Amino acid sequence: MKLKLKKLSLDAGRPVSFITEQDAKALNVHVGDRVEISKNNKKIISIVDVVRGFISKGQISLSSEIINYLNLKDNDIVDVNLSIEPKSSMLIAKKLAGNSLTKDEIFLIVNDIANNSLTEAEIAYFVSGVYEHGMSLKETIYLTEAMWKTGKTINWHSKEIVDKHSIGGIAGNRTTPIVVSICSSLGLIMPKTSSRAITSASGTADVMETITKVDFSVEELKNIVRKTNACLAWGGSLGLAPTDDKLIRVERLLNLDPESQLIASILAKKLAVGSKYVLIDIPYGKNAKVSKERAIKLKEKFLKIGNHFNLKIKVVLTDGNQPIGNGIGPVLEMLDVIKVLKQVDSPKDLEEKCIFLAGEIFEMTGKAKKGEGKELAKSIIKSGKAYEKFNEIIDAQGRKNLILEPAKLKQEIIAKKNGKIISINNKSINILGRILGCPVDNSAGIYLHKHNNETIKKGEPIMTFYAESKKKLEEAISYYKEANPIIVI
Amino acid sequence: MKLKLKKLSLDAGRPVSFITEQDAKALNVHVGDRVEISKNNKKIISIVDVVRGFISKGQISLSSEIINYLNLKDNDIVDVNLSIEPKSSMLIAKKLAGNSLTKDEIFLIVNDIANNSLTEAEIAYFVSGVYEHGMSLKETIYLTEAMWKTGKTINWHSKEIVDKHSIGGIAGNRTTPIVVSICSSLGLIMPKTSSRAITSASGTADVMETITKVDFSVEELKNIVRKTNACLAWGGSLGLAPTDDKLIRVERLLNLDPESQLIASILAKKLAVGSKYVLIDIPYGKNAKVSKERAIKLKEKFLKIGNHFNLKIKVVLTDGNQPIGNGIGPVLEMLDVIKVLKQVDSPKDLEEKCIFLAGEIFEMTGKAKKGEGKELAKSIIKSGKAYEKFNEIIDAQGRKNLILEPAKLKQEIIAKKNGKIISINNKSINILGRILGCPVDNSAGIYLHKHNNETIKKGEPIMTFYAESKKKLEEAISYYKEANPIIVI
Repeated sequence: MKLKLKKLSLDAGRPVSFITEQDAKALNVHVGDRVEISKNNKKIISIVDVVRGFISKGQISLSSEIINYLNLKDNDIVDVNLSIEPKSSMLIAKKLAGNSLTKDEIFLIVNDIANNSLTEAEIAYFVSGVYEHGMSLKETIYLTEAMWKTGKTINWHSKEIVDKHSIGGIAGNRTTPIVVSICSSLGLIMPKTSSRAITSASGTADVMETITKVDFSVEELKNIVRKTNACLAWGGSLGLAPTDDKLIRVERLLNLDPESQLIASILAKKLAVGSKYVLIDIPYGKNAKVSKERAIKLKEKFLKIGNHFNLKIKVVLTDGNQPIGNGIGPVLEMLDVIKVLKQVDSPKDLEEKCIFLAGEIFEMTGKAKKGEGKELAKSIIKSGKAYEKFNEIIDAQGRKNLILEPAKLKQEIIAKKNGKIISINNKSINILGRILGCPVDNSAGIYLHKHNNETIKKGEPIMTFYAESKKKLEEAISYYKEANPIIVI
Repeated sequence: MKLKLKKLSLDAGRPVSFITEQDAKALNVHVGDRVEISKNNKKIISIVDVVRGFISKGQISLSSEIINYLNLKDNDIVDVNLSIEPKSSMLIAKKLAGNSLTKDEIFLIVNDIANNSLTEAEIAYFVSGVYEHGMSLKETIYLTEAMWKTGKTINWHSKEIVDKHSIGGIAGNRTTPIVVSICSSLGLIMPKTSSRAITSASGTADVMETITKVDFSVEELKNIVRKTNACLAWGGSLGLAPTDDKLIRVERLLNLDPESQLIASILAKKLAVGSKYVLIDIPYGKNAKVSKERAIKLKEKFLKIGNHFNLKIKVVLTDGNQPIGNGIGPVLEMLDVIKVLKQVDSPKDLEEKCIFLAGEIFEMTGKAKKGEGKELAKSIIKSGKAYEKFNEIIDAQGRKNLILEPAKLKQEIIAKKNGKIISINNKSINILGRILGCPVDNSAGIYLHKHNNETIKKGEPIMTFYAESKKKLEEAISYYKEANPIIVI
């Protein structure tokens, strides 16, 4: 059936088509059914809503997800057809029942996620199946390949592309902007694309967005990298492994992050972005994403799958027992990053970790001899060259001229006795960050005044909460009292 | 924040609020966030969409789910507030990780499903958790109680309420309209409410809807039952165990139906509708929902949980190896029901099962002595009294004056050789029914010309497919060839 677009601006968060009751009847579709909308040989699957009033028979309205994808303008004629229930829902049921999936089956599911044929509830079932039953090494390889090949890939002006990645889960831990600045200042090419937060209060893309544009076309990105050797961009809009963001959106609802999806998501993006050298950081420990035992197994899997795809991959296991840096939340973490780069009031734990990671990269790529990488990295920070490079990248991406400060509403948490801090629960700190509004409210978050093994006096602040709404601040205080995330003895 | 309603008719399938970018910013919410919409002390949680164009700052548009729930009219002022992420999502994660839930936790989840605080993806995670890890007897009792007490309950003019239920999964198997007609004609009070299809091609409510209204208020239902002793209504709009339909909607996506949810869903409705006597039919066998072993265990659970709630409950295990009756699909099944009641060309397997079930009810309730129920039931069908009662109920509910016939597009499946039918795959027949458009396309479906152990000659039709669109008919034929659901030797 051909229908005429009545354009209205509506972000529905997923592709939705609005048609009249008469046209729905003629198409034999009902609210919640799937229809295929197509124009110029490009098609997208969407969910039907039936409306009365603002459109008439023969007209259709489409959510902005469809309008942008099909590049439509007002009064365009689109083809609308019934879409059969996707076969992949049966394959998802198969995984949920504990069976393995073949290469073809995994490609079918990933394709259907990519082209919006599956609803968020169906994607949640897929995530559940993978979360409950895991994936074999083979399945993980297929998932990686499917996520990689469903999307775009980038070819750079050089083949010697370097990348790094942390599996996340540690509050603060904003090493990427610093490591990329150190390494690219020595000529390494690091076109770094990051995702937004999954289980932590903010992701690198959320943090970078506080001071610069992060959303680029591939062409724009190439220009930035040609100019500066690096970028610190959001990967989501580049069309690299596009299913990843859809999976993350659904995983975030329950803070899930199944191991095989974590590996596939990371390596698919590295493959799509053309990386040759990849450094993976796995923070482990109490309240980190993984224990030491699981970290060791995860490392093996990363190495096996990375080698399968001919990546020069190195995996480091780091201390993930407590948050890294003082700030948690996009703006607060950016303030930490700048302190390290400027060497003014630098949070030492964050600085040391960045020097370690940059040193590893220097040794992997032959920029430093074995054992000499850290010294080289340290000298680059001290010389100010890393900060210079960071500013170059920010300027190339488009600096936002905003004053960077935490949210206006704040609440200090005060020590009730003299003592020593012996434990900071990473997970609870992340949940606190999220309750305060992170990552969406970018100036919300937590400032940690102390770390493990530091002494504190009665009346001193342990941490400060920042939020944009009173309700969120109150919720955080109430959660803090319940969860008691910091232990002082 | 107070916003003025700009009414438009929009069925979104879930509560959705449309606000402008300016108001979204002021409220500090983003696309996909939850807001609480309230008016006159009644509130509903909804998902935010941000729109430009058809409303202006200070205005809000709401999907019909919200307008109906809050009983709003154009230009009404509603309160709109940020809604915090529901705590129940953490509890769902707990179940998905394999942990048991307490009574309070289960009540919190069920409440949040009932008041639309959880998205369909979150409900899918809950279904997955229960599907993967099951529920203990205790958890199932809590779930039953939560589903029952979250909704309305009905008090009838008598306490001697009789009910029956099949766990479903068998194509055809439309015993309810016949059993209710037989039993209520002898004075038993059977206010039967049914749900729509979960894993089969149609449910009793779908079938009844082909000839009568099924959607009533509690008051309307009481009038019908006072007049006729019975009703054959859809339970969904009565507000009895309202979470059930929301769960079913999500379960249907993958044809899931976890055991404890099945029990809770059935018994919660029986409790809400005030039943005293309950007969449960568990069809078992190859391709039924359950094997004989599981049927026996399920029977025990039903009895334990039924007894916990003081129900007089009987559970029968019946043959579920093949479809029952000739028609599969709402209209085709109604044609079978009428044939049995009119005793014209009656499908014998369906007739016998109905006589058995009605006989059991007569013996449970003391209308017949042990061993004499079946004879009594048979005599009532033969006398025409059951058909008379059926018509009374239909008229009281509001008969639709439609010509009842299968969909116009059809395709016969022809036997390729002489032989005997030895197996009809119930599950594949159900899937075929769904591919053909059941239950939404009510005249679509399958007519089975033969059952197990019947002989067939080359060239005779085995079954006929009916569909409302050529695409669906073709899909069914292609699935038939792949699945080969009927074996002739």
